[in-house]
Amino acid sequence: ARPKVGYFYSGKSDINVFSQEAEKYLVEDVMKMPVVVTEDSTIYDAIVTLFLEDTGTIYVVANNYLSGVVSRKDFLKTLMGGGDMNKMPVGMIMTRMPNLATVTKNETIIEAANRIVENEVDSLPVVEVMEENGKERLKVIGKVSKSNITELFVNLCKK
Amino acid sequence: ARPKVGYFYSGKSDINVFSQEAEKYLVEDVMKMPVVVTEDSTIYDAIVTLFLEDTGTIYVVANNYLSGVVSRKDFLKTLMGGGDMNKMPVGMIMTRMPNLATVTKNETIIEAANRIVENEVDSLPVVEVMEENGKERLKVIGKVSKSNITELFVNLCKK
Repeated sequence: ARPKVGYFYSGKSDINVFSQEAEKYLVEDVMKMPVVVTEDSTIYDAIVTLFLEDTGTIYVVANNYLSGVVSRKDFLKTLMGGGDMNKMPVGMIMTRMPNLATVTKNETIIEAANRIVENEVDSLPVVEVMEENGKERLKVIGKVSKSNITELFVNLCKK
Repeated sequence: ARPKVGYFYSGKSDINVFSQEAEKYLVEDVMKMPVVVTEDSTIYDAIVTLFLEDTGTIYVVANNYLSGVVSRKDFLKTLMGGGDMNKMPVGMIMTRMPNLATVTKNETIIEAANRIVENEVDSLPVVEVMEENGKERLKVIGKVSKSNITELFVNLCKK
């Protein structure tokens, strides 16, 4: 029988090596440029922007601060419903603040991934929290998506 | 000075602990049910299916075998172009075989994630390769997406 003495306890079983590696990555390390339109843009113009920028989600701003999010799904629903896309502004169909999940650039990718899964969204706007007249305002500075996380997963498996 | 003798070389630097853990997961461990329509379904019916099943991509079959893939983006483009969604079949607008990236259930999630990133798609149909009259046919048995990979990433970081 193999002697039970002299072996080395590494303590590894207590450590999640996976998260230990993953938590080194912050949102700012993987975030992409956001695609942004103003709340009064027509649905038509926003859809054209969506195709030209080849993205699935657009962030909407009013007075330069985040006011909403609009996605392919929202646009498709509007067109199916027969809305006039040349007249209706995106502000009418977007998901509006404060019902939006966001993330800041110093949070970890693990936190961002958790929030994406919990909120069942494809991406989160990366925001800087500002104050204006005593009110909290969010400035959009990036975007972190399931695509970023899939790419990070691939890269972490390669290294 | 610290003596340079007696330290233990673990060899850890040669091993990617991340992929070592991730490669335990096969496509069949995380795949979801696919949403499938036939090639002659109208675009209208396919869009209704897309919303009722709350999915972003539909797989299209002809004679029970994979013939194409159609996504929110394809539908949005068609509606923008003024196509008659009550008459046009999805077969007219789908991305058609053999221009489709697929995966089998025994491949690893790392392979699936790589293929998703390389092909710039949101999901891959999980297929079983069959033969009919000497021709290769693909039966759709599942779907693996960026959402599955994001969820796996979150779960691996939790364990």
